[in-house]
Amino acid sequence: MKIETKTAQFTSPLYLESGRILEPYEITYETYGELNEDKSNVILVCHALSGSHHAAGVYEGERKAGWWDGLIGDRKAIDTTQYFVISTNVIGSCFGTSGPMSNNYATQVPYRLKFPVVTVKDMVHAQMQLLSQLGIYHLRAIIGGSMGGMQALQFAVDYPNLADNIISLAATYATRPWTMAFNKVAVEAIRRDPRFEHGNYEVDAFKEEGLDGLAIGRIAGHISYLSPDSMDDKFGRNYVNNDGLFELFGRYEVERYMEYNTNNFSRNFDPLSYLYIVKAINTFNLSRGYDSLEDAISRIKAKVHMISFTSDYLFFPSEMEHIAKMMKENGQVHTYLEVESNYGHDAFWLNLINLKIIYERFYNERTEF
Amino acid sequence: MKIETKTAQFTSPLYLESGRILEPYEITYETYGELNEDKSNVILVCHALSGSHHAAGVYEGERKAGWWDGLIGDRKAIDTTQYFVISTNVIGSCFGTSGPMSNNYATQVPYRLKFPVVTVKDMVHAQMQLLSQLGIYHLRAIIGGSMGGMQALQFAVDYPNLADNIISLAATYATRPWTMAFNKVAVEAIRRDPRFEHGNYEVDAFKEEGLDGLAIGRIAGHISYLSPDSMDDKFGRNYVNNDGLFELFGRYEVERYMEYNTNNFSRNFDPLSYLYIVKAINTFNLSRGYDSLEDAISRIKAKVHMISFTSDYLFFPSEMEHIAKMMKENGQVHTYLEVESNYGHDAFWLNLINLKIIYERFYNERTEF
Repeated sequence: MKIETKTAQFTSPLYLESGRILEPYEITYETYGELNEDKSNVILVCHALSGSHHAAGVYEGERKAGWWDGLIGDRKAIDTTQYFVISTNVIGSCFGTSGPMSNNYATQVPYRLKFPVVTVKDMVHAQMQLLSQLGIYHLRAIIGGSMGGMQALQFAVDYPNLADNIISLAATYATRPWTMAFNKVAVEAIRRDPRFEHGNYEVDAFKEEGLDGLAIGRIAGHISYLSPDSMDDKFGRNYVNNDGLFELFGRYEVERYMEYNTNNFSRNFDPLSYLYIVKAINTFNLSRGYDSLEDAISRIKAKVHMISFTSDYLFFPSEMEHIAKMMKENGQVHTYLEVESNYGHDAFWLNLINLKIIYERFYNERTEF
Repeated sequence: MKIETKTAQFTSPLYLESGRILEPYEITYETYGELNEDKSNVILVCHALSGSHHAAGVYEGERKAGWWDGLIGDRKAIDTTQYFVISTNVIGSCFGTSGPMSNNYATQVPYRLKFPVVTVKDMVHAQMQLLSQLGIYHLRAIIGGSMGGMQALQFAVDYPNLADNIISLAATYATRPWTMAFNKVAVEAIRRDPRFEHGNYEVDAFKEEGLDGLAIGRIAGHISYLSPDSMDDKFGRNYVNNDGLFELFGRYEVERYMEYNTNNFSRNFDPLSYLYIVKAINTFNLSRGYDSLEDAISRIKAKVHMISFTSDYLFFPSEMEHIAKMMKENGQVHTYLEVESNYGHDAFWLNLINLKIIYERFYNERTEF
């Protein structure tokens, strides 16, 4: 599989939903496979909150593969011998695309809290500019889970003629207060952390020792990505040190997992980017800018494949089903599948069952593309 | 209704589950109604994580009633014209009963992190000492929700001859990792807060400005006490300041609620006590000390009434149902009711429906006491 990582520069302004303008900006993206001559084999992959453009393959000298490596590759579900796959890092993130720690061109210092709020609509808008720069005006499919699934749906609504297929996993039509509340833990934990310094921390300040606030917020995140049953399976009531059951800070297995994972995360993710992306998730609402959700949904021309997971405690199956019902009423082409799964919200990227489902979906219907 | 608030002193040692000894110690408790001559009209009420002995009535000069005032009072469900109700503050708490900020008799300074870990079994054990001091050896009922429901069940298992009736709401037989994970947010947020000073903060340090770590942890708590649907009803996607949708720290209604409530809480609750009580919840396991859960449950002689709530996202109905199934198999007298409710875990104390249910349960079966 041919992998290329690039950063595209944009000197023309990006008009944001807030009315503010981002100018100039850049988008870091990765491609897998090869673009065919008539540019008709393109699939766009959209990442979730903590993801990046690195969706597949393994970088030289590294051991960890991209976040959806199980899905993307030669003769995998998204077959890179046939398709040219583009995966971009979203606006606001911290892996090469313009975000709060990027230099503000006017002042030549990082934006920090002066970076404009971006929305899922803006993320999608920015990706449209990239596609345009690449001379790509038609996609075979747009695929994503969680915030990536929000982007896929937003593409479907805002740019009805862009893609033949939309595959949205574990997403929703509008973020509910339940999810905002989980995000609120991160917002407050980061904001109140003295080392955050109101956003004025030094670049790379947390490389060695992550920001506590981000780690704490991420614990709340992990709760929402798992499920009561998956935690039973994964951790049970196992105690890390059996002799220490009556030590105040003695830890159950689930506590160790939360500490370990979130401390790691807080060394590798920029807290300002986290705040901005969480804001984008909170403000996600397909109907904003349209008369109603019905109005927004009725614009869709692509075939929309929606997949939810029974044990998803972040975006509940009923939310995707709500879109499916609307599309059904409108006679719009769509499929909706609620996958029986114990894996919680994380099922969308770690459960091989759903990869297989996508694979089948994708290939069974390929003739209709 | 006659209300009395007292603190009982104990000079004999309290032997804790950990093997450690608490000596001396005190228990603050409140009573409602009057003890009859043969001491046969006593009901014990057990409080949850953030509760206290102040379960009913209004203190002079205050406006807020006790946490279960809707339930306890003259001619209320727990009728104080007939019953003598005792409500104690649990060991480890911060409202008058011995806890981490109590003076260690040996050193005359607060225990802080040297306070021994206490368990739900210890809380129950301490209450037994109080009952003994009061010369009360038989109870008509023990009632509690959440951690109070755990105590009620622990009483039933450890002291089978004590009470005729056990009413346990929104509890479980053993805390699952899902709940531990919510608690973990609080543990890490408190522990890592610099103002916590590893437990060496000054007494009353947070009276004016609460500890951020406790407030942040409490946000995670509130998520688990509510439910996705109840949040939809309560907050929707309402934004506090509509013009500020694209301000990074602009807040949705649910965010304001979380900030307001948790900041208040962090001014009124001791963070060390929070850590100790959360530890007691994490370590709760009815089977510890017995051969198995079956063995523990089979000891019960009281009639056990269990009530769970469909939308409880902290202790799921299946957990109480599990106890009910075991009791059924053993032919033990019990009732189990899953109440249809949108209120989440909080239903156990804020939903009048369940108060009415308890009332009916209680009175319909009174003749059998």
